[in-house]
Amino acid sequence: MSEAATPTKTIRKKTGNFLEDFHPGQIFRHKGGKTITEGLFTTFTEFAMTTHPLTKNARYARAYGFDGLVCSPGLVMLVAFSQTVEDISENARANLEYIDMKFGAPVYIGDTLEVETKVLGLRTSSSRPNLGIVHVQSTARKNIGDATEAIVATWQRKVQVYKGDDSVDVDGFEIPADEIECDLWLPPYDANAKLGELAHLSSGDSYFEDLEPGTRIEHSRGRTITDEHIHMTAILDNTSQVHCNQYMIDLDPKQYVGGQLIVFGGIPFTLCLGLSCPDIGDNALGDLIYTTGRHTAPLQAGDTVFAATEILGRRDHPDREDVGIVETRLFGHKFVRDAEETHEDAPEGWKKVQIFELDRQLAVKRRSHYS
Amino acid sequence: MSEAATPTKTIRKKTGNFLEDFHPGQIFRHKGGKTITEGLFTTFTEFAMTTHPLTKNARYARAYGFDGLVCSPGLVMLVAFSQTVEDISENARANLEYIDMKFGAPVYIGDTLEVETKVLGLRTSSSRPNLGIVHVQSTARKNIGDATEAIVATWQRKVQVYKGDDSVDVDGFEIPADEIECDLWLPPYDANAKLGELAHLSSGDSYFEDLEPGTRIEHSRGRTITDEHIHMTAILDNTSQVHCNQYMIDLDPKQYVGGQLIVFGGIPFTLCLGLSCPDIGDNALGDLIYTTGRHTAPLQAGDTVFAATEILGRRDHPDREDVGIVETRLFGHKFVRDAEETHEDAPEGWKKVQIFELDRQLAVKRRSHYS
Amino acid sequence: MSEAATPTKTIRKKTGNFLEDFHPGQIFRHKGGKTITEGLFTTFTEFAMTTHPLTKNARYARAYGFDGLVCSPGLVMLVAFSQTVEDISENARANLEYIDMKFGAPVYIGDTLEVETKVLGLRTSSSRPNLGIVHVQSTARKNIGDATEAIVATWQRKVQVYKGDDSVDVDGFEIPADEIECDLWLPPYDANAKLGELAHLSSGDSYFEDLEPGTRIEHSRGRTITDEHIHMTAILDNTSQVHCNQYMIDLDPKQYVGGQLIVFGGIPFTLCLGLSCPDIGDNALGDLIYTTGRHTAPLQAGDTVFAATEILGRRDHPDREDVGIVETRLFGHKFVRDAEETHEDAPEGWKKVQIFELDRQLAVKRRSHYS
Repeated sequence: MSEAATPTKTIRKKTGNFLEDFHPGQIFRHKGGKTITEGLFTTFTEFAMTTHPLTKNARYARAYGFDGLVCSPGLVMLVAFSQTVEDISENARANLEYIDMKFGAPVYIGDTLEVETKVLGLRTSSSRPNLGIVHVQSTARKNIGDATEAIVATWQRKVQVYKGDDSVDVDGFEIPADEIECDLWLPPYDANAKLGELAHLSSGDSYFEDLEPGTRIEHSRGRTITDEHIHMTAILDNTSQVHCNQYMIDLDPKQYVGGQLIVFGGIPFTLCLGLSCPDIGDNALGDLIYTTGRHTAPLQAGDTVFAATEILGRRDHPDREDVGIVETRLFGHKFVRDAEETHEDAPEGWKKVQIFELDRQLAVKRRSHYS
Repeated sequence: MSEAATPTKTIRKKTGNFLEDFHPGQIFRHKGGKTITEGLFTTFTEFAMTTHPLTKNARYARAYGFDGLVCSPGLVMLVAFSQTVEDISENARANLEYIDMKFGAPVYIGDTLEVETKVLGLRTSSSRPNLGIVHVQSTARKNIGDATEAIVATWQRKVQVYKGDDSVDVDGFEIPADEIECDLWLPPYDANAKLGELAHLSSGDSYFEDLEPGTRIEHSRGRTITDEHIHMTAILDNTSQVHCNQYMIDLDPKQYVGGQLIVFGGIPFTLCLGLSCPDIGDNALGDLIYTTGRHTAPLQAGDTVFAATEILGRRDHPDREDVGIVETRLFGHKFVRDAEETHEDAPEGWKKVQIFELDRQLAVKRRSHYS
Repeated sequence: MSEAATPTKTIRKKTGNFLEDFHPGQIFRHKGGKTITEGLFTTFTEFAMTTHPLTKNARYARAYGFDGLVCSPGLVMLVAFSQTVEDISENARANLEYIDMKFGAPVYIGDTLEVETKVLGLRTSSSRPNLGIVHVQSTARKNIGDATEAIVATWQRKVQVYKGDDSVDVDGFEIPADEIECDLWLPPYDANAKLGELAHLSSGDSYFEDLEPGTRIEHSRGRTITDEHIHMTAILDNTSQVHCNQYMIDLDPKQYVGGQLIVFGGIPFTLCLGLSCPDIGDNALGDLIYTTGRHTAPLQAGDTVFAATEILGRRDHPDREDVGIVETRLFGHKFVRDAEETHEDAPEGWKKVQIFELDRQLAVKRRSHYS
């Protein structure tokens, strides 16, 4: 067979789904999948100023019973979440809420993540008829078909999606979420492992005993985000055009927040986790669950991100004496110039703008057992 | 022996060759060579928004009979071509044409590429006596001396090169190209492999049967290039100063296109391949040949790149029933502001500028066998 | 146990040490440690335009008796030095001098570096009572506890550090440096290895015999640094805020050089090593020692870096006939606009500014043995 023809027909394929494309219980098995290379690992672990030795020092990670360097929860989130963007949020206006993001098996360099998503709900808006809220539940597995196959994360999110055809009527719905078994894997505790000899590699004042409920820690470091975010978003396979298509913005700047490219939310999410790390994360064996979280203002190239953590509570781990659970709220913020007013928590001429918050529970080592 | 001296003599070594340095049949065995690390792989596969699961998902690649993640043709081109820059085009004004770029053995992370180039021709210009066109043929091998040694790509190109000494007379010449055996390696087809179970990981509408001659596909995504290109070009060992030396540009801006650093052509080349991927490449087992290609306008930081593919023909594969050959022309373009005129294929106030075209043949899976 | 509380107490932890925190003989075992991933390797080897085949071509590196791609001395320096920043120089005004930086065992991808630092001296300043000079000695080991454990580098530095509390009196001191055994590891010479067959992969005119004392080589390439430096510094775990916190600069620009973020000194350090590579480094088996070095002007995003090498002397290697020691001084410089004056060594309207110098001894192959 051999065929030839001069092009006469132009095709422009739809990418992503619109509000009217979502149905109750619908399952998306997302394309691609993603093998964690050492390149991906380095870019996304360390841009965020993460200090956790499990993510930096293979000797330390192996001594603790992991197979090697461990992907931070931020990296797992970035990779797994990005897999869902084309199907769920390529045509979204905003991601509204993260719900019950739970972590399971550890993710190592070389693992391959694949993600699927179930549609749980849809809510229309009488005030903004061209938009609706889609509620989905996603689950990321690693190494499917292999002996190491495991669930690494599961979460729900609510996202505001545009209609593709404004004239279509869309009905709301809501079905129950699935029960996904996803419990944080912890390496077994071995009192003979002499892990205290490695204690100098993590911060000395962020053990379970140190993290007192009622405390707010202002993390000291800030990190300016540059237009590096365009490259980073592409590397994550996040296909949303508001992060990387300046021409689209230039055509109609008023349509977009600040008339600029917006930084993909996964980037400040991970950056806030990283900035909090020396004070709150260095001695965590893992993040258990993010019960709720949201972006409260957009981030753009040139902004400097800061973070703070409020310690809301702590409790024993049900099965382990060597770790306890710490309940925190993580905040991200930036400062913008504001000559008009004086603000209590910002220098003169500046205003503090909260960009992110996340209710976060960590499994933290006890000094009594590890130091 | 021990010698010491205060410096009194200054040396400034020549880098690269000038028009008068090229001779018929001359062979350059290029310096360096390059081992594909996971860092290189990630940076250059994914900046281009490539969606091909063979380049992203090691489970998928292994199921198809590859040894692991497969370097995209764009990455192979970037690495192999860059090896030739110092000897061939460090003193070039422009790369004029790519000819018969053929791909052979697959390239994996860990492979080491080395390249050599033969000089085929030289043509002088009566109108621009300080410039001439050099015609070369390059071949990239991997893992020389190892059991996996193989040719991975071979191509010709024509490049406009400056004289080093304008007063030298240079004679033109042309000798025949070598016949280089370089056929695209395809993994054997196994009807029992149940590859259909992985079909959801690639796009569902880009099989051989879908790619109809006579169709032009406008790929939906755009990607803004930032000054990231300076870093990327350095990482490729591309030593051409027009990509990375702003001081040189500032000294004499009129000498350079737009008075700015120009993005290395391999970057839009690869980016256009990547942007076309969801529609045209996701189900290719490889790229066979680029018969001709050229850059038709320069790209600079801040430009947003789009791509389109025209399907010109398709034919059976001579030896394989499971794949067919698709003949396409890939276009890259950008939009520039132009208040003066109205252009049919651009919004008001903008002009569409074609930056790249490439005649490209792909070996594409048939839905009948793989889905 | 289960506790909960609403945050009422705000904590802002001190990061880094101030002048009054340093004591004679004090030892810092730095946090973190760092495993060299392929991502880290690629980013930092190649941004600097390094051409050394030992860092690029695994076939070449193995033929020479190394285990695989070899980390360049610049990369070893960047990683090892950065580990010391939080404890030693997070609150520094400037790094004043590098002293006796010696290299030992080769560093490969996968190796884990950990660093410790001893405080040797402290000098106060009567003219600037809020600042003092801290003198430290650092040693980087790889793969502690493993059969491959070895010292990879050791160095001293002097750094200007702020007081945390200006009212505190600080006394000066100075104790002797430790003798750290750290000799450059060289692969054994094997006359039968036919390494001459790989000679085309490195430059042909940078053997021991070529590097004549009394010569100054102006390295031909320049490289513009972009705001990529923010990302690069974060990836190195360098926590100094003057490199990455634009908001801090904006609050009080006059406090900071040029009112801008400053590029981390390790970046021009490594970049100058890279730019010198084709002329001076391609045939080195390693860098022996940097006896002294300093940054003489700051570098900022947008600057283009150039380098030059003066060959000051050469001598036989005490134990090896196949290599000799070359003594050089490496310079880095940039050009800044200066309309006022005419400068001998710069084009009209520009001034040449030296940014870096380093007294550097290399172990270089003899052509007689390797070509």
